[in-house]
Amino acid sequence: PDAAAQADAAARNAQLTKPMGSLGRLEELALWYAGWRGTSRPRLARPQVAIFAGNHGVVARGVSAFPAEVTAQMVGNFEAGGAAVNQLARAFGATMTVHPLDLDRPTGDFVTEPAMSEADLLAAMAAGWRAVDPEADLLVAGEMGIGNTCAASAIALALEGGEARDWTGRGTGVDDAGLARKAEAVAQGAARIVGESDPLQVLRQLGGREIAAMAGAILAARHHRIPVILDGFICCSAALVLHRAAPGALDHAVAGHQGAESGHARLLEALGKAPLLSLGLRLGEGSGGTLAIGVLRGALACLSGMATFAEAGVSDG
Amino acid sequence: PDAAAQADAAARNAQLTKPMGSLGRLEELALWYAGWRGTSRPRLARPQVAIFAGNHGVVARGVSAFPAEVTAQMVGNFEAGGAAVNQLARAFGATMTVHPLDLDRPTGDFVTEPAMSEADLLAAMAAGWRAVDPEADLLVAGEMGIGNTCAASAIALALEGGEARDWTGRGTGVDDAGLARKAEAVAQGAARIVGESDPLQVLRQLGGREIAAMAGAILAARHHRIPVILDGFICCSAALVLHRAAPGALDHAVAGHQGAESGHARLLEALGKAPLLSLGLRLGEGSGGTLAIGVLRGALACLSGMATFAEAGVSDG
Repeated sequence: PDAAAQADAAARNAQLTKPMGSLGRLEELALWYAGWRGTSRPRLARPQVAIFAGNHGVVARGVSAFPAEVTAQMVGNFEAGGAAVNQLARAFGATMTVHPLDLDRPTGDFVTEPAMSEADLLAAMAAGWRAVDPEADLLVAGEMGIGNTCAASAIALALEGGEARDWTGRGTGVDDAGLARKAEAVAQGAARIVGESDPLQVLRQLGGREIAAMAGAILAARHHRIPVILDGFICCSAALVLHRAAPGALDHAVAGHQGAESGHARLLEALGKAPLLSLGLRLGEGSGGTLAIGVLRGALACLSGMATFAEAGVSDG
Repeated sequence: PDAAAQADAAARNAQLTKPMGSLGRLEELALWYAGWRGTSRPRLARPQVAIFAGNHGVVARGVSAFPAEVTAQMVGNFEAGGAAVNQLARAFGATMTVHPLDLDRPTGDFVTEPAMSEADLLAAMAAGWRAVDPEADLLVAGEMGIGNTCAASAIALALEGGEARDWTGRGTGVDDAGLARKAEAVAQGAARIVGESDPLQVLRQLGGREIAAMAGAILAARHHRIPVILDGFICCSAALVLHRAAPGALDHAVAGHQGAESGHARLLEALGKAPLLSLGLRLGEGSGGTLAIGVLRGALACLSGMATFAEAGVSDG
């Protein structure tokens, strides 16, 4: 981040017509954004919501409440403008892009084999990198992929340890029997690669293409100095790979929300990120991150638009 | 609320392209709004943020970090468009109205005398009632008044009991000595009227004109079936008066946020309201409630704009 711009923004913030610190997290959020964008009075002009979709071999084990064809159907819904994230992107003035990744070629079943080859992993990460508009001034990376909470849970277990049940939740709403199958798959997948310490190899072994693409997109955003709002559990599993690969890799990212998926709170703790929102969402597809654009808009409007004590002729206490 | 419209909205919500319940609190928020507006696909077209300002005799006791003249100065800032809430109202498409209430005639010092006469109370509540645009489709009631967290704390103590220190916080940032003076004033004010069980009399004895006006505005909103987003500690003290006067009086209101003012969490519990946001704000002036308009906008965009499973050709699990 640009320390001079951030210092200028902090100096401006201290003169605005409010008690110091009284806008709480809005103040830190605005200063963080100012630093990454290199300007003390930032505006949000071109936010991008990029949605990546992938299919998962592990779905054949009955770990999801929905069949795999829903992934492609929902991609059609995104393209037609009918999904939740379309409405949220429109409401908060963001452009949405949709990136299906080899949907008719699911990843390998990670319980018994690597989810992706080296080439698959690189292709997916590159797709994520290329999806980011270099001119965007904010990125929300979201996903769609029946079975992908299962992959995200396996990644979290492999990288953070603990018990499979700590990281495994109901996703889109799997029943008790499905949840048991899911936790078993998560445990077996992580056990298959026990000792693997390279986070990118963990991603290759257990993750899906959309998870790898989100990791690539978050990296690209860093390259372009585009701040990122993280979405839910699955997006955060992609972020975790980067976080474990390089400390500080997520300094340009904030946590948009804490969702209802069990394990998300723990995952946010592992990332060291406090969520902006906590509204019980468990939809994925970038919905929580996109909703949090509103909070960022409010924060930037205050920093950039408020009068100073001197301008307004207000006594500063 | 309109039960038929709410039922229609709930039926629509169940068919939208998402797992049932996966939008968490956004779903309940949208259904609540649909019921009060009497339509199953509501849009937010005309939100109003009404800011009331008053001055407080108790300020002479040194209970605030800012001098009393700041109330009028900030009214000028609201009118000129320079305050935080101006930026937030603009960011979320709300019209803002500003209502100074007899600023050069502070209320009586509630430690020793009634803050308001019966006529003063009625005039302030009527000003609040009249301030509400009957054509608005959402109301955020906010306030400005140096010393008004002190009045709000006294109201809460008188109505809810407990200890003065449980309800007394630093407001705009009073120091330790000021906080001790403030808690003492709160305790003495509540003790002066011990046994008073009429919430409106408590409001008259301890409250400020802006607090009474917010109560009047919230009542007017109910009359016009305008949903309300409550703001911080002071707004919630006005709401508490209504809540204790008539159970269900706040059914048309949601809590916009939980602020950093100590006592706000407890006050929200007394109201039985879970906040939409919790970002450490402690500014008042309707800022947290106005920020929460963004959450409501997102909720309504999803309910009213999403495709159904049938429309999108998506399998519903």
